[in-house]
Amino acid sequence: MADPQPPEQHVDPWNVQGGEDGRIDYNKLVEQFGCSKLTEDLIARIEKATGKPAHPFLKRGIFFAHRDLADLLDCYEKGVPFYLYTGRGPSSEALHLGHLVPFMFTKYLQDAFNVPLVIQLTDDEKTLWKGLDINESRRLARENAKDIIACGFDISKTFIFSDFEYVGGAFYRNIVQIQRCVTMNQVRGIFGLGMEDYIGKIAFPAVQAAPSFPDTFPHMFGARKDIRCLIPCAIDQDPYFRMTRDVAPRIGHQKPALIESRFFPALQGEGGKMSASDTNSAIFTNDTPAQIKTKINKYAFSGGCTTTQEHREKGANLEVDVPWKYLNFFLEDDKALEHIGKEYASGRMLTGEIKAELIKVLSDLVARHQQTRAAVTDDVVDAFMAIRPMAAVADGKA
Amino acid sequence: MADPQPPEQHVDPWNVQGGEDGRIDYNKLVEQFGCSKLTEDLIARIEKATGKPAHPFLKRGIFFAHRDLADLLDCYEKGVPFYLYTGRGPSSEALHLGHLVPFMFTKYLQDAFNVPLVIQLTDDEKTLWKGLDINESRRLARENAKDIIACGFDISKTFIFSDFEYVGGAFYRNIVQIQRCVTMNQVRGIFGLGMEDYIGKIAFPAVQAAPSFPDTFPHMFGARKDIRCLIPCAIDQDPYFRMTRDVAPRIGHQKPALIESRFFPALQGEGGKMSASDTNSAIFTNDTPAQIKTKINKYAFSGGCTTTQEHREKGANLEVDVPWKYLNFFLEDDKALEHIGKEYASGRMLTGEIKAELIKVLSDLVARHQQTRAAVTDDVVDAFMAIRPMAAVADGKA
Repeated sequence: MADPQPPEQHVDPWNVQGGEDGRIDYNKLVEQFGCSKLTEDLIARIEKATGKPAHPFLKRGIFFAHRDLADLLDCYEKGVPFYLYTGRGPSSEALHLGHLVPFMFTKYLQDAFNVPLVIQLTDDEKTLWKGLDINESRRLARENAKDIIACGFDISKTFIFSDFEYVGGAFYRNIVQIQRCVTMNQVRGIFGLGMEDYIGKIAFPAVQAAPSFPDTFPHMFGARKDIRCLIPCAIDQDPYFRMTRDVAPRIGHQKPALIESRFFPALQGEGGKMSASDTNSAIFTNDTPAQIKTKINKYAFSGGCTTTQEHREKGANLEVDVPWKYLNFFLEDDKALEHIGKEYASGRMLTGEIKAELIKVLSDLVARHQQTRAAVTDDVVDAFMAIRPMAAVADGKA
Repeated sequence: MADPQPPEQHVDPWNVQGGEDGRIDYNKLVEQFGCSKLTEDLIARIEKATGKPAHPFLKRGIFFAHRDLADLLDCYEKGVPFYLYTGRGPSSEALHLGHLVPFMFTKYLQDAFNVPLVIQLTDDEKTLWKGLDINESRRLARENAKDIIACGFDISKTFIFSDFEYVGGAFYRNIVQIQRCVTMNQVRGIFGLGMEDYIGKIAFPAVQAAPSFPDTFPHMFGARKDIRCLIPCAIDQDPYFRMTRDVAPRIGHQKPALIESRFFPALQGEGGKMSASDTNSAIFTNDTPAQIKTKINKYAFSGGCTTTQEHREKGANLEVDVPWKYLNFFLEDDKALEHIGKEYASGRMLTGEIKAELIKVLSDLVARHQQTRAAVTDDVVDAFMAIRPMAAVADGKA
């Protein structure tokens, strides 16, 4: 018998499977997908263009890849307007911290560049893939919108929409144009869809592609096609936008630019995304302080040694340590982070101590989020989701 | 070398190919599709239920097949409401006479049963299949709506919609529900779609299916699911509704009933449908009297004999004679029709004479149509296409 093959790394929009050691090789992913690594140089250009310090997610390599970002910055500097497009598939009651990452980063981009933003809630996708009842998908979309709004988006520049409510008109016309450029063979190649898949799944990639084009939003941009689009997302969404970028010039549109993040690891360790269906795999925005404390102490995978004595001697392995990784996402103070890293790696700081730091950071973050979210009424959701003109939005650079 | 195989009859929503003799074997089609033949008995029931004489298209076997029509009549007699659904793919500037057939028949059904009607203009289909520019498809949809309105539909009970304008909301939600019940394998089996086809084509059958369910039209029927649907169409559309009927119970809907017609033959003879792209294959609603006369005299395939002497002796073959077939569609007077048939079959009437009869009938019909159509302004089109409540419609039987 042949030796069993080690698992191969596989990443698509619905599945993330690490390689032999369970971890994701992001360099390999960049090469495979054909996107580019985000260089120091580009981060410096973002700081210069916005006149604001780069977000920690940029400095710490959490958003680490891109497509056409240099080109987008060229345009921005020349006064060509752009808008941001991101989204979420509403499959759970509350978001977990991994879900917050692209929204926290998008909020920074919206503030720094002062640009309009569209947020797609793919309730149709969740009905198609997870078999969720349509009305349950719609309800979750609105619940998730509250968590998203609580990230602090500017209502004068932000349009949130659910596919089940907003598909139609200009949006549907762009969907059909995209669907007329992509064959079944292509979605098999890009997404692995096959003969047994529902036709809704086969058609869906165009629904996620269409918001990349400004005339999908006539109430915001009229029929303008010159406005550029920048998509902040996790790198598993790259296949959608590879397809979109391929189609764009064929239907008279510009290719959207992308800025792409690593995955936020599960409490149990890297090699996957957190799962909304396993409540112990993640910290959720509606967790209590007690739940946060218990989950981190009980489930957060540690890179520290098993005995205190051994730990003091050898120190912690930051490469696999989940509390350390989480702090890299959410502890904003660079100096404090650096200090913790040194202390923990050297063994001077114990696993219990770094977990205590993380518990404090996340309890604060979640408490703030819950406070903000409590103020997000249904009226506020309606206001963000209203189809309305947005003054000065189409003029771009503020 | 083997003998070349005779062509096999093939009918799908986009292609009609006759058998060995170029003609359509309708009995074979009914058997293959699994629908039922429309019996004398059922026609008598329609007359009884409506209190009106059956339309000539029924009496003459032009609408000749059905699905669940007896069941629909049972419901109607018990006071369960139903609505009519028909449509058109807008690929030409003007309709030809073959296009008018389902609309003339639908007008009769609307009047006789006094029921609401929805008419779908599949401008998206024409963009997907014929590559028509989206705005050109939308323009043709409105032009075609004028021809359709000129058939005399009751604006208080008729909603005309274009997919590019009306897909969205409740309609889109039904589309996705249908798309979650049909696999790529199934659309390959039903429609012959394959790996090289665009994903828009693969997804489209759900767009034509969704109007079969009343809650696709919340402005007309609210969220009611008890209202039945009857679809008058040519039999080549049967595959769409076979798929729809398969899906219906799985998503909590009733199966639509169908009443299905033969094809209106091309001027050159049976064995195909008329083509909007070959102006000499059909009489169009915007043809002049001179064009009608020339086309019939020059192109209408004759079942008469080549010399007058031979014709007087042998008579005409009505089975293949196009003027005779056209008169069966459009000469309302049963006695006059019967007389012409006898005279022509016996040889007493010559080809030129039956053609003269047809020229008179069609010139009158087209002139009346043109006069009515001239009164259909853009405002009238807007009124028929307005999303509006329809009083008393949901209460069914008048």
